[in-house]
Amino acid sequence: MRQISADALDDIARGAAVLGTGGGGDPYIGKLMAQGTLRRCGDVNLLDPMELADDDLVVPSAMMGAPTVMVEKIPRGEEIVTAFKALQTYLGQPVRATMSCEAGGLNSTTPFTVAAELGIPLVDGDMMGRAFPELQMCTPTLYGVTATPMAIADEKGNSAVINTVNNRWTETLARTLTIDMGCSAMIAIYPMTGKQVKETCVLNTISLLERIGKTIRESRERHADPVDAVRQATNGYLIWRGKVGDVQRRTETGFARGEAVIAGVDEFDGQSLRIAFQNEFLVAQTDNDVLATTPDLITILDDETGEPITTEGLRYGFRVSVLSMAGDPRWRTPAGLAVVGPGYFGYDIPYVPIEQRSGPTSQNR
Amino acid sequence: MRQISADALDDIARGAAVLGTGGGGDPYIGKLMAQGTLRRCGDVNLLDPMELADDDLVVPSAMMGAPTVMVEKIPRGEEIVTAFKALQTYLGQPVRATMSCEAGGLNSTTPFTVAAELGIPLVDGDMMGRAFPELQMCTPTLYGVTATPMAIADEKGNSAVINTVNNRWTETLARTLTIDMGCSAMIAIYPMTGKQVKETCVLNTISLLERIGKTIRESRERHADPVDAVRQATNGYLIWRGKVGDVQRRTETGFARGEAVIAGVDEFDGQSLRIAFQNEFLVAQTDNDVLATTPDLITILDDETGEPITTEGLRYGFRVSVLSMAGDPRWRTPAGLAVVGPGYFGYDIPYVPIEQRSGPTSQNR
Repeated sequence: MRQISADALDDIARGAAVLGTGGGGDPYIGKLMAQGTLRRCGDVNLLDPMELADDDLVVPSAMMGAPTVMVEKIPRGEEIVTAFKALQTYLGQPVRATMSCEAGGLNSTTPFTVAAELGIPLVDGDMMGRAFPELQMCTPTLYGVTATPMAIADEKGNSAVINTVNNRWTETLARTLTIDMGCSAMIAIYPMTGKQVKETCVLNTISLLERIGKTIRESRERHADPVDAVRQATNGYLIWRGKVGDVQRRTETGFARGEAVIAGVDEFDGQSLRIAFQNEFLVAQTDNDVLATTPDLITILDDETGEPITTEGLRYGFRVSVLSMAGDPRWRTPAGLAVVGPGYFGYDIPYVPIEQRSGPTSQNR
Repeated sequence: MRQISADALDDIARGAAVLGTGGGGDPYIGKLMAQGTLRRCGDVNLLDPMELADDDLVVPSAMMGAPTVMVEKIPRGEEIVTAFKALQTYLGQPVRATMSCEAGGLNSTTPFTVAAELGIPLVDGDMMGRAFPELQMCTPTLYGVTATPMAIADEKGNSAVINTVNNRWTETLARTLTIDMGCSAMIAIYPMTGKQVKETCVLNTISLLERIGKTIRESRERHADPVDAVRQATNGYLIWRGKVGDVQRRTETGFARGEAVIAGVDEFDGQSLRIAFQNEFLVAQTDNDVLATTPDLITILDDETGEPITTEGLRYGFRVSVLSMAGDPRWRTPAGLAVVGPGYFGYDIPYVPIEQRSGPTSQNR
C-alpha cells in the first residue's frame, strides 16, 4: 500500500490518456474531479491487489456515457458516490476497496474520487488494461464473473440497481438508462471478492499509468522525443505519422462514433490512414493495409508534446504520431476476441497481433 | 374482506375491459394467468381499503409495456412475483397486501396472480379508476406520493430497482427498460402505507369491475341490450354507433399508438368518428365536433354482445357502439388535467366534461 497525492494524479492521468486509446473520456476531467476531492479529503491509499484478503469485497466505480457528452456535463463528484453507496446498501456488506473499471480515459482517475470521499483504498488494477466502450468488455467476464448487481446514478438524483442474466444484458440496460439520464451517468459495478480481483483483473495498471505519464513528462523536461518515450514505455509500435484531415464524429446510441483521416508525412507521405472509433480507436487502416485493430491499443499522440489526443480532441491540421501496442494477453484468446475483437464491432477483419502486423522494424523507426 | 375465486374473475375481467378504454392489455390474458394461479394456490382475499391499518405496507403490482406485444408474449406469472419480491427485499419490510395499478385492462387481474402466489390479500382499489398509459398517471402522484422505489423484471431473469426524483422520471426510466426487455415487463411500484392508500387511491374499484361485468353477463343471459346495460352500469353516454373502417396501429417508443375510424350508422349515418389512442382511447372526434376526451373514459363495445373491444382487437367491419363516462373527479382538477388531460397527450383540445359535451339526452338514446 502506498499513498497517492493530488499532484501524483498528473502523471496517472497522462498515462491514462495513452491507454485510453482516444476514448474513455478526457482524463483531464477525471483528474480535476479527483484532485479536488483529494485536496479536500486527503491522499488515497493505493492497494496492491496481493494485499487483498480472498473474501474482501471490492466494488469498482466509473463514469458511463458518451465522452463527447461527459466533457460537457462535468459531474460534481457526488453522483459517483451516490451510485457506490446505493450498491453498498444493496449488498448490505462493508466494501473494502474500490477499483478502476478501465486503465484509460477518465475512469482511471474517477474512482480516486470515491476512494477519497469514502476513505477507502483503491486497488492498483483495472478490468480492461486499457479503455473499451462497453460494460461486458472486462476481463472478469471471461471468467464468468457477473457485472451485477450494479448501481447507476445521475446528477439529478435518479438511480437504479440492476440484476441481469449476463454481462451483455448489463450493458444493454445500463446503456439505455445512461441515455435517459442525459448520455452520462455514474456506476458501481462488478462487485467482486479479493480472490476474484487477483485472479480475473488486470493487475498493477495504475502504477503502469503513473510510469507512462512520468516518462512523457520527463522526456519533455529534458527535450527528448516524447513520442519515442511513450513508444518505449509501452513497448509500442509507431504505425503512422501525419496530419489530421477530416474527422467525422456523431453521438449515437450513447456512444461517440466516427472516423478520422490522417494524411501521411515523412515515410508515410502520399497515403492516408483511416482510424474508426466507438468511444475508443478500434481499427487503423490505409487503402491497402490494416495496420492495427482492437484489442491491441491504438493511440494518437501530438507530435510536438507527446500528449495523447482523445477522439473529441482531434482537430484538422494537428501533426500526430500513431502508436499501437499489445493489450492484455487474455483479450487475444478466442474467448477474448469474441468480446472485443474486430468482428464484435462489425469489422470483417481478422485479428493479427500488432507485433506480427508491424514486425520489429517499426519499433525503431 | 371477502374471497374471490377463479370463476369470479370472469366478471371482473369483463368489467376491466370496459374501464380499460381499449388499452391496458387484453384482460383475457390477465384473467387466464390469474385463474391458473388461483386454481393452484387458492382463492384471493379482497381487502376493503378501510380494513388497512395506517402503517400497513401496500405494494401495487402490474405488467408494463405495449398491449400489442403483451398479448403475444404471455408472462408465465413468475416474473410478476420476481419484481414484487425484489422490491420487498429492497424495502426490507413485510408487505401486507398488493393492489392493482389500474382498474382496466389486464392489470386489474394480474395482481391476483401475485396475491395468490404469495398468499397475501389484494386491496379493493386502484390508482387510476380506469387504464392510462404512463406510470405517473396515478392519483397518488397528485398527492406527492412517489412511485419509487420500484422494481421491474423480465421473463429472462433481468431486473432493476429504480429510485427517481419524480414520477415522470420513473416513467422515463422504466419505459426504456421495458423496451429493452422486449416491450413487456412486470413491475412492483408505488409502495405506500395503508393511510396513503385510503387517502390517495381510487377505492373499491375491483368491486365496481365485478358489478359491471356481472351486468353485461346477466343482460346477455336475459337477451337484453348489453350496450345499454353497460351504459347504465357505468353512468355513461352513448356517443357513437357505427362500423369500424380503417385502423392504423403502430408500436413505437414502447406504446401501441394509432387511430381508428368508425363510420356512423343510424342517427350517426353520413359522418365518421376518429378515435386516437396511445394504448388507451384518448380522443373521439368527428370532422366538426369533439365528442369526448381523456380523462373521461372512451369505450368501444361490440354491438351484439356488449363485449368491450381493445385497440388491438379492433377490426374492419365490426359493428360497434362507443360509450363515454366520467373518470375519477380528481382527474378533472387543474392538477389532474396537467397529468392526464388532452394537452399532456399533445392534443390542442380543451377538456370539457362528458356530461356537458353530451348532455342528458344521449343517456337515453
